[in-house]
Amino acid sequence: MPHAEPPRRGRDPRHAEISPFLVEPRWLVPVEPAGSVLAEHAVAVRDGNIEAVLPAAQARSRFAAYERIALDEHVLIPGLVNAHTHAAMALMRGLADDLPLMRWLEEHIWPAEKRHVSAQFVRDGTLLACAEMLRGGITCFNDMYFFPQAALESALEAGMRSAHGIIVIEFPSAYAADAADYLGKGLEVRDRYGEEPLASFCLAPHAPYTVSDASFRQVATLAAELDLPVHVHLHETQDEVQRSLSEHGVRPLERLRRLNLVTPNLIAVHAVHLSDEEISLLARHGCSVVHCPSSNLKLASGFAPVGKLAAAGVNVALGTDGAASNNRLDMFQEMRSAALLAKAVARNAQAMPAHAALRAATLGGAQALGLAERIGSITRGKAADLVAVALRGPELAPCYDVVSHLVYAAGREHVSHVWIAGELHLRDGALQNSAFARLDTRMALWQNALGSLAGH
Amino acid sequence: MPHAEPPRRGRDPRHAEISPFLVEPRWLVPVEPAGSVLAEHAVAVRDGNIEAVLPAAQARSRFAAYERIALDEHVLIPGLVNAHTHAAMALMRGLADDLPLMRWLEEHIWPAEKRHVSAQFVRDGTLLACAEMLRGGITCFNDMYFFPQAALESALEAGMRSAHGIIVIEFPSAYAADAADYLGKGLEVRDRYGEEPLASFCLAPHAPYTVSDASFRQVATLAAELDLPVHVHLHETQDEVQRSLSEHGVRPLERLRRLNLVTPNLIAVHAVHLSDEEISLLARHGCSVVHCPSSNLKLASGFAPVGKLAAAGVNVALGTDGAASNNRLDMFQEMRSAALLAKAVARNAQAMPAHAALRAATLGGAQALGLAERIGSITRGKAADLVAVALRGPELAPCYDVVSHLVYAAGREHVSHVWIAGELHLRDGALQNSAFARLDTRMALWQNALGSLAGH
Repeated sequence: MPHAEPPRRGRDPRHAEISPFLVEPRWLVPVEPAGSVLAEHAVAVRDGNIEAVLPAAQARSRFAAYERIALDEHVLIPGLVNAHTHAAMALMRGLADDLPLMRWLEEHIWPAEKRHVSAQFVRDGTLLACAEMLRGGITCFNDMYFFPQAALESALEAGMRSAHGIIVIEFPSAYAADAADYLGKGLEVRDRYGEEPLASFCLAPHAPYTVSDASFRQVATLAAELDLPVHVHLHETQDEVQRSLSEHGVRPLERLRRLNLVTPNLIAVHAVHLSDEEISLLARHGCSVVHCPSSNLKLASGFAPVGKLAAAGVNVALGTDGAASNNRLDMFQEMRSAALLAKAVARNAQAMPAHAALRAATLGGAQALGLAERIGSITRGKAADLVAVALRGPELAPCYDVVSHLVYAAGREHVSHVWIAGELHLRDGALQNSAFARLDTRMALWQNALGSLAGH
Repeated sequence: MPHAEPPRRGRDPRHAEISPFLVEPRWLVPVEPAGSVLAEHAVAVRDGNIEAVLPAAQARSRFAAYERIALDEHVLIPGLVNAHTHAAMALMRGLADDLPLMRWLEEHIWPAEKRHVSAQFVRDGTLLACAEMLRGGITCFNDMYFFPQAALESALEAGMRSAHGIIVIEFPSAYAADAADYLGKGLEVRDRYGEEPLASFCLAPHAPYTVSDASFRQVATLAAELDLPVHVHLHETQDEVQRSLSEHGVRPLERLRRLNLVTPNLIAVHAVHLSDEEISLLARHGCSVVHCPSSNLKLASGFAPVGKLAAAGVNVALGTDGAASNNRLDMFQEMRSAALLAKAVARNAQAMPAHAALRAATLGGAQALGLAERIGSITRGKAADLVAVALRGPELAPCYDVVSHLVYAAGREHVSHVWIAGELHLRDGALQNSAFARLDTRMALWQNALGSLAGH
């Protein structure tokens, strides 16, 4: 199994001193207020934060000393929030596809994880995922995997904002022995990195079929004490629902409700199979749902009732899931798929309009993670997590509506610039961080190591 | 309304003299035989055709005099066939979205067509569509729109292979007065351009709800006489099926069967709402179906039973539909969406594996158009319609299976080279044809002209 030196902890010296600057895009879509599209506007950034959003002419006189970045063909949007992923599984992208869930898991994914998952695997896989996500305009991701400290350290090295799951699962792994061990190790990581400005944490009980009532109770207690989000796979497949009915006498959501987990902290991932009553319950309690359209299709899980969830007032976020079941970490793809699928599922072409998809991919994710005061929209005082998308090329002509183009026509390849907390990470499509230079050699090693488990 | 000088007819002098060459990709996916992935192979091209597919070492000695094109990170595939589009509607990309079908048509699309569609509109819109399609690895498209001669001339100017619908519809337009006029004008275009090696023709009765029995009978007679494919929207929406039941007493497919149109020449576009008996009928008669997943979702038409169609032996092709209802002319997107959707619809992760999606996007389209002896696979004697896809970047690492990557992870932005009949049209992602240079000014004119009809 390949190994490399561990990365240094914490922030790059480049973070320390960033001169203030003005971004002047052709269009600006702040996400808040909803539906707004601004032209001739600029964003002033100082100390990593959005200092002002104002007409470009005013900006040039008020911030005359700031460096000016003119983006004449671009739309500026808030950084995309990938609200559910297993970043390190990027190393298993395309390892096995087109297989029924249990053969996929039992013959390929689980053996690969059993043999190979280590802190080094997670470090390298997460760094790979960060490179991909940054290039596609993702500035923040919500991760759930083994060895969260390794994932967190790679995210910090990459300069990305990230939320890390304090994973809880009842079976042993190279990372931890039992639920108490998982929980203890995760809390330790939180103690160590709790002050990192780019890092946050969720409790992450894996799923109803892999976590006991006792562990869920502990999670509920901790979530209330520490005011942490609870990131859990929920109602992903019919099988999960059936199994809960036979083992617990109730459906998984009702089980979680009885265990005091249905609260505004709940991040229900997938939420494919829901009754109308369950949708009301999620809405009443201020829960968030992370919709993962590509993954739900690829694993044949089904069609989430996103139109109904949104209509009921549930906060909807979007996620890529891991690259083993997608196989992209591409929020442009998820926005498009979510907006299109919602229409066919609801039999209503007005379900999830383009602005709603963009909101889900930004502010929806921020809200789910408890970060809506910090990120998710281009608003004065929030962090300068900004993404410029170049609307050029025959595939984006003509242009009648920039948000329609963002969701239905553009792709992640149109992302040209990415800033996180004011630091430039992508410039004209090129990654700026030298940490990614080692990926080529690392990938070659992992590809050799895992290749024997591939199957299609 | 903007105008420009008409393009010159026929072939560019560049077509005439192309030196023979060898393409040496890292991987070669010929599509025939099914499932094959070759490494260390080369394709020899002479006079626009595939002269040989053979091990690279042999190729270098046998074709030592040929120019060698080494593509060390690339997979070479047959050119993609977009089996259903309305190319000129690229000018209405994003003009209106997120609207119910009738408002979308009545308030935006039809008024725009009524005011603006002309030979010049079709010429410019088709040229724009060709630029987008070439950049995305599409070498052949099957078009249905007004003013097919203008579309055909733009396709020829662009150097693309194309099939043009001899459109038949009962309502008048700027192009033709009635069904007889449409048919007469279309047949005239075929008479004029019948010998063009890059052009072919279909009869294109628009849809069951816009074409009379009398016109369908004429189409059936002509299809049999001339052995032309019959390109028709069919069973796209529940409404269409209901309307046929109330107006004709039978479902549209049964109506076409009675009118002698259910034959191997039938290209049934959409085919969303089908009973098992209808699937058997299509299979028994050797019909082709063009699946348009993005469009079916965006217009909330429903979910086509692609897994069942393929299992029954129906030839499945893929199409983008027009850019007004997609909003991309992107066969990579359609491959991915088709493969993913098929799994969720069938509740079976093995429905439409990656190789099947690639076959549908290439040989499936060729077969539907009656062109399978000429294009659709990398086979000796077929035309050298070839596409190289660069499998590099963090989003495509690691790589365990190139066909999985093509369908699930890569995008059209990874297309680096495109040849049509041996002529290089895209080199390292850059279009080679100077005809596209005029698009910028033309698009600005159309955007102004149509912008007042935009709405979301």
